[in-house]
Amino acid sequence: MSQADIGLVGLAVMGQNLVLNFSDHRYTVSVYNRSPNKVDEFLAGAGRNHRVTGTKSIAEFCQSIKRPRKIMLMVKAGAAVDDIITSLLPCLEPGDIIIDGGNSLYTDTQRRCDELQNKGMRYIGLGVSGGEEGARHGPSLMPGGHEEAWPQISGIFQDIAAKVGDAACCEWIGAGGAGHYVKMVHNGIEYGDMQLICEAYHLLRFGLGLPVDAVKQVFEDWQHGVLDSYLIEITADILGVRDDDGLPLVDKILDSAGQKGTGKWTAIDALESGIPLTLIGEAVFARFLSSLKTQRDHASQVLHGPEKSRQSHEPEMIQYIQDALYASKIMSYAQGFMLMQRASELNQWKLNYGNIALVWRGGCIIRSRFLSNIKQAYDADPHLDNLLLNDFFKTAVEQTQSGWRKAVQFAIERGIPAPAFSSALAFYDGYRTSLLPANLLQAQRDYFGAHTYERIDKPRGEFFHTDWTSRKSAR
Amino acid sequence: MSQADIGLVGLAVMGQNLVLNFSDHRYTVSVYNRSPNKVDEFLAGAGRNHRVTGTKSIAEFCQSIKRPRKIMLMVKAGAAVDDIITSLLPCLEPGDIIIDGGNSLYTDTQRRCDELQNKGMRYIGLGVSGGEEGARHGPSLMPGGHEEAWPQISGIFQDIAAKVGDAACCEWIGAGGAGHYVKMVHNGIEYGDMQLICEAYHLLRFGLGLPVDAVKQVFEDWQHGVLDSYLIEITADILGVRDDDGLPLVDKILDSAGQKGTGKWTAIDALESGIPLTLIGEAVFARFLSSLKTQRDHASQVLHGPEKSRQSHEPEMIQYIQDALYASKIMSYAQGFMLMQRASELNQWKLNYGNIALVWRGGCIIRSRFLSNIKQAYDADPHLDNLLLNDFFKTAVEQTQSGWRKAVQFAIERGIPAPAFSSALAFYDGYRTSLLPANLLQAQRDYFGAHTYERIDKPRGEFFHTDWTSRKSAR
Repeated sequence: MSQADIGLVGLAVMGQNLVLNFSDHRYTVSVYNRSPNKVDEFLAGAGRNHRVTGTKSIAEFCQSIKRPRKIMLMVKAGAAVDDIITSLLPCLEPGDIIIDGGNSLYTDTQRRCDELQNKGMRYIGLGVSGGEEGARHGPSLMPGGHEEAWPQISGIFQDIAAKVGDAACCEWIGAGGAGHYVKMVHNGIEYGDMQLICEAYHLLRFGLGLPVDAVKQVFEDWQHGVLDSYLIEITADILGVRDDDGLPLVDKILDSAGQKGTGKWTAIDALESGIPLTLIGEAVFARFLSSLKTQRDHASQVLHGPEKSRQSHEPEMIQYIQDALYASKIMSYAQGFMLMQRASELNQWKLNYGNIALVWRGGCIIRSRFLSNIKQAYDADPHLDNLLLNDFFKTAVEQTQSGWRKAVQFAIERGIPAPAFSSALAFYDGYRTSLLPANLLQAQRDYFGAHTYERIDKPRGEFFHTDWTSRKSAR
Repeated sequence: MSQADIGLVGLAVMGQNLVLNFSDHRYTVSVYNRSPNKVDEFLAGAGRNHRVTGTKSIAEFCQSIKRPRKIMLMVKAGAAVDDIITSLLPCLEPGDIIIDGGNSLYTDTQRRCDELQNKGMRYIGLGVSGGEEGARHGPSLMPGGHEEAWPQISGIFQDIAAKVGDAACCEWIGAGGAGHYVKMVHNGIEYGDMQLICEAYHLLRFGLGLPVDAVKQVFEDWQHGVLDSYLIEITADILGVRDDDGLPLVDKILDSAGQKGTGKWTAIDALESGIPLTLIGEAVFARFLSSLKTQRDHASQVLHGPEKSRQSHEPEMIQYIQDALYASKIMSYAQGFMLMQRASELNQWKLNYGNIALVWRGGCIIRSRFLSNIKQAYDADPHLDNLLLNDFFKTAVEQTQSGWRKAVQFAIERGIPAPAFSSALAFYDGYRTSLLPANLLQAQRDYFGAHTYERIDKPRGEFFHTDWTSRKSAR
């Protein structure tokens, strides 16, 4: 029997769908799973009539793959990845390539790169986005790790990736954990995008009081403009679904958000690296708050909101809410790219931000027209300091900021929470402010803790201390 | 020579000041320092005429202290604490008590408790707040660890602690790392308080355009009301200090905030434990943003703010800003106590929140009249679910919310960043909202990732999945 082009370990839904995707592109796949009956089931079921062979032992699996072997792991992130690597190693040869397609923490990927480098193996941490559908028909792929292995696998992964025009949504990201890092930031941005849509929905439905069909129509209209994206599209779909009793199904769903941790990782990483990633931070916190459902139910009976406004809202409020969503989204991506820039410097990844925007342009949950604008911004200036300084985005914010401000003021007046809209606005106003009140904060720190301060009229790195109490009446 | 009541390792400023404080309260102290010349300098200098004896070796140091020994460590948090414990151990006997007074990460303290328990020693992780002045004349103290050691050291530490009336700002916090944990949350709240004052200052000075003397006057006025606190007091002091040229010294200070990490730890802990600690999060991020001084200077030339408002602000705006500061502060403390509640449950610390408020009432950086109100709230109901549900705070928020909303709207209209004010407001409106848009978010997650959802008309723990695309036209 001829040997397989690639091997895959782990036949959960994502793994199965990737196998079928490889097979559609005329690659033969050898599969292995810890519970062997999963292999039989797959071969008899979804994998039937596909280019798949099943194996029942690690040794058989490794023998069944062309050298240098390409072995993709689709197992649960964490210890399971280390376990399977350990059991593969005795059967592998120098130059073989292991590709981890799970949601691994990027520092784990970095460590595994180092460990396998010492053993003569090649290691790739591959961010995979797009869920089950993406895996089956074209995911967004973020490969990082040992760059010398990339030419050997780029063909196969670019073939199975999503396409935007002729371009595959799969480009080399960088060394070590870069691929999984960028995937983590993608997920953080996804949290932000979803929170922004929820805030817009909340304002339309309960601020303006629009019926659900009208809100669905608003999202459909937005889908034809700058907000065109997968998440806006599915929001419109969702709002059209009725429960068996004819009422909107969304109204039957418990408003208590779950999460799997990658948004939280992104926010923690921002805190560790000193980047003001406020919007994703608020989005993660908003999920936490939503999950305190019992407390909120009780508090809603006890704590009062603003007095009912007698003012009617401006007729353009739907447009203002769109402005708020668009401008806030720009802030979120600007913050996300700031975070990646910092990580790229710290880890010497030399990230190509245009490529990242391209990879996210299709196949993944945050895919959108917007990402083409980001790609263009970085294509025009690969060393762009900040997305907000690009002409397209600068103009977009300037054109929307008046409506954005009015939408947030409207939310405040009506007592509707819009943490991401308002946090994004505070970030914009802070970022474009030359003189922030951190001078007072530094004075406070020097007052109570002798932490010293720098002066605007002296070189950076020169530190001063004042005995504030003895000088307080000195003028 | 008679033996000392307590031993202290580490003669940096905090350590020296604690020795003098012990001595003032008629305790004799034996001191040791890694570089022995520091001991000589201290005995000849600040320690002269105090009840201090110096030692030059660990053995001599341990011999010089009454049994069971009480040994306080004032060394840099991290490896230095483990090193000194290791070198002390051969000279100690079962029942001796080691007290770590540094800013140790609470998980380190938890680990050291377990390690020393196994060796028959007692270990206390002691949060110390109040800076150099506090250490010298009365700090706020947060002891946690081996509770059986507490009766043996409570007298000495309650003696040197700050007093509010007759009460010492030093009460037992809880087992393991509880003391250092509560100290960490204290520091996070300090970040929040400072950011809130900075936002008020920014609005007064550059929103309303008040001269610095008038702003100073506002802070002095606030000091006589509900905002009465150490940080408001020093802010008024700071605004009165002039540079040599007669201009306000605060205006000469570079607006780029430093930090030492404990605020960041608090925010990370909140992300790890699922608590929406938005205000402290924004405060940490605001410091990060301020430190991007070069980028901000550049952006301020490029990015435009709102059009100059022709509306004049309402004459009551100073009051509204006070309202915003007060209400936001209530949110920050409510969030901080939510975080401690979660930690207490997770670690079975049985935290006493009234005691914590009392301990913070004096001696430390966040000391304030406000903390008496918190103590009263928890004294009235030790099982209070949330500070916001206490009558005093509920009424306070309801009385200030109209002004709070106007102040944030004013900031937005003028383009002045007020991330903590606005984040706090969004939290309040979210907390008291029974129906958040997280139902839409759960629908999105179910749509693209089959993550399932719960229903409002079914028991919790029952999960549903919808094939959204096939049902989208089903009505």
